[in-house]
Amino acid sequence: MECQNYGLTRSVERENLNLNPLQRGGVLSAAAREALYDFGDGYSVCDYCAGRLDEIAKPSIGGFLEDLAKFINVDAVRTVHGAREGKFAIMHALCDKGDTIVVDGNAHYTTHLAAERNSLNMVEIPNNGGPEFEITPEKYREVLENAIDEKGEIKLALLTHVDGNYGNLTDAKKIGKICQDAGVPLVLNCAYSMGRLPIDAKELNVDFVVGSGHKSMAASGPIGVLGMKEEWADKLLERSSRHQKKEIEMLGCTSRGAPVATLMASLPHLVERVSKWDDEVQKARNFVEQMEEIDGVVQVGMRPTNHDLVRFETPFFHEIAQNHPRRGFFLYEELKKRKIVGIKRGQTEWFKCSAYGMTKEQVDYIADSFKDIAEKALD
Amino acid sequence: MECQNYGLTRSVERENLNLNPLQRGGVLSAAAREALYDFGDGYSVCDYCAGRLDEIAKPSIGGFLEDLAKFINVDAVRTVHGAREGKFAIMHALCDKGDTIVVDGNAHYTTHLAAERNSLNMVEIPNNGGPEFEITPEKYREVLENAIDEKGEIKLALLTHVDGNYGNLTDAKKIGKICQDAGVPLVLNCAYSMGRLPIDAKELNVDFVVGSGHKSMAASGPIGVLGMKEEWADKLLERSSRHQKKEIEMLGCTSRGAPVATLMASLPHLVERVSKWDDEVQKARNFVEQMEEIDGVVQVGMRPTNHDLVRFETPFFHEIAQNHPRRGFFLYEELKKRKIVGIKRGQTEWFKCSAYGMTKEQVDYIADSFKDIAEKALD
Repeated sequence: MECQNYGLTRSVERENLNLNPLQRGGVLSAAAREALYDFGDGYSVCDYCAGRLDEIAKPSIGGFLEDLAKFINVDAVRTVHGAREGKFAIMHALCDKGDTIVVDGNAHYTTHLAAERNSLNMVEIPNNGGPEFEITPEKYREVLENAIDEKGEIKLALLTHVDGNYGNLTDAKKIGKICQDAGVPLVLNCAYSMGRLPIDAKELNVDFVVGSGHKSMAASGPIGVLGMKEEWADKLLERSSRHQKKEIEMLGCTSRGAPVATLMASLPHLVERVSKWDDEVQKARNFVEQMEEIDGVVQVGMRPTNHDLVRFETPFFHEIAQNHPRRGFFLYEELKKRKIVGIKRGQTEWFKCSAYGMTKEQVDYIADSFKDIAEKALD
Repeated sequence: MECQNYGLTRSVERENLNLNPLQRGGVLSAAAREALYDFGDGYSVCDYCAGRLDEIAKPSIGGFLEDLAKFINVDAVRTVHGAREGKFAIMHALCDKGDTIVVDGNAHYTTHLAAERNSLNMVEIPNNGGPEFEITPEKYREVLENAIDEKGEIKLALLTHVDGNYGNLTDAKKIGKICQDAGVPLVLNCAYSMGRLPIDAKELNVDFVVGSGHKSMAASGPIGVLGMKEEWADKLLERSSRHQKKEIEMLGCTSRGAPVATLMASLPHLVERVSKWDDEVQKARNFVEQMEEIDGVVQVGMRPTNHDLVRFETPFFHEIAQNHPRRGFFLYEELKKRKIVGIKRGQTEWFKCSAYGMTKEQVDYIADSFKDIAEKALD
């Protein structure tokens, strides 16, 4: 048989300034690039496995997991295939078909999918509407308490630490305390926070944290992090009755190659970069300020932003698109000419973007480019 | 915090002749090495996603899946994180807690884990004992029929195409027919066959096939293949009621980076190499013949072998170990001096190995090295 041409190149997206928030936190560190080379083949981390991935000594996955547990302050940690697979595993281990869980209204779609795959019902805590779309602790408490009154038992609560639509940073510590007081274990979805900003699971009063290596931890996907308090380890990491070394919810082992090797290589880099999170937030705020100099452009979500992912309403660009010979494509094309990518083709009414990890000069260049495109369009 | 040194290098295992059967089929093709470089960062294949991984046009994951479906002759196919995750998803979609499935006695431990995670009971078809340890169609029929008589309904049957202990190739076509006649859908676990030898799911009368990219398909782990007949697609690929593009059992998307890019890049290489499978079998048989010239060395499992994974009983090396100053380590160390790795340290009584993908000269060199070690030990 003859295979099609799959167009397997990514130089445009790698070599230009990529504003796609999905792509900013997963760019490999230099050390991870080296690990990728050495551990690219198949099952590369399994040369010296004696039956437990998390106990492999060469490379030291055991040592890495110890460090990772310290990094996010949890008692036990495993790598999984992604944040979604971590959420699924927690729900699967703790809940039964038909149980009800509570979930914030800004949750990622994968939270809904994980619940649906487990046949769970969801009660949602709505955000407070535009322009902030905030999940407030007060609302969380109210909905949780009502749900307990109504259903008798709520097996699990979930909170999105930073959501992917507005980049809103929730008050996990306060909501963690509310859940703790209600006796409901809380999962904090840190896909957009772990590896970008410091996470201290115990300080935040949460029972579980999940993170995403490809989204925010400078690792090659798919890989996620699943951390937990000691009291949940017996349940979530229960061993098989037949294969006594193997953990059931992990199906024995999870990450079996380059993803875990790159995450290991990047951990020292992550330790360093989360300590500079305040600079990233400042950079994002400056970027917003510059973008809002363009007529009608406004950042939505909580203000000032506390995250690099920012969402803009851009009616100005949308109006231009109506009369432009290239219609909605003009913005994408004008940006691309300036070596800026990551805003979806045809999207002009609003967009999400992130300049995480870029230099101040790059961010200024991007803001100037948007301004330049706006000005030229007026001519 | 200070991170430990994880010893993240793999030059010894990459640069020497690695006999570990786990590592032979996952060595990247040259094209996959290039894809690894381009798609190493985070979520690299998701630049142009419109909500469905399997429909991404750049790179053409959609086109790749069409080709992959042809390659193994199935109606629908998805990539998953590995063969085990594929088995779990099938069981999860088709079975309910407490259901009974039948499983061959040479099944990989992950089959048991997938069943245990789904709270299923297993009835096992025993192999016929040593020295062949064969799963015969007759025994499969007998156990399946008894299980149906006893339990009323058997929701699923599983067969390991080539097992990882003896490298026995089962008669999938005949067993597929038996299951078909009994009205029980059959999953064929092709972790050690898909990507090594030609697979034609329809010809083999199976409902589902799972494969492993890192084990046998020249891809960077973790990635697996889940193929199915049309009639199961509605159930296994059911969409979310809330997020209508997203498939529940896939949690939306599965492979999100280098693993799928490397598998895509390797597919033309796999198409080519499975056509030369007979040469690989011949090479394995020659290797067995040479190894058996050593006193007491004998290949166990079906003979002549039909797979590159071969298992030897080596009482001769075990006896040497008893009186050797380096005890059981001598064999590992002697091999390593000769640039041969992949036999576990301390293992001398028996071992599994594979020379898949090596040249005839390399295989001869390996056999000569074993003979040389044996002779020297007698001096």
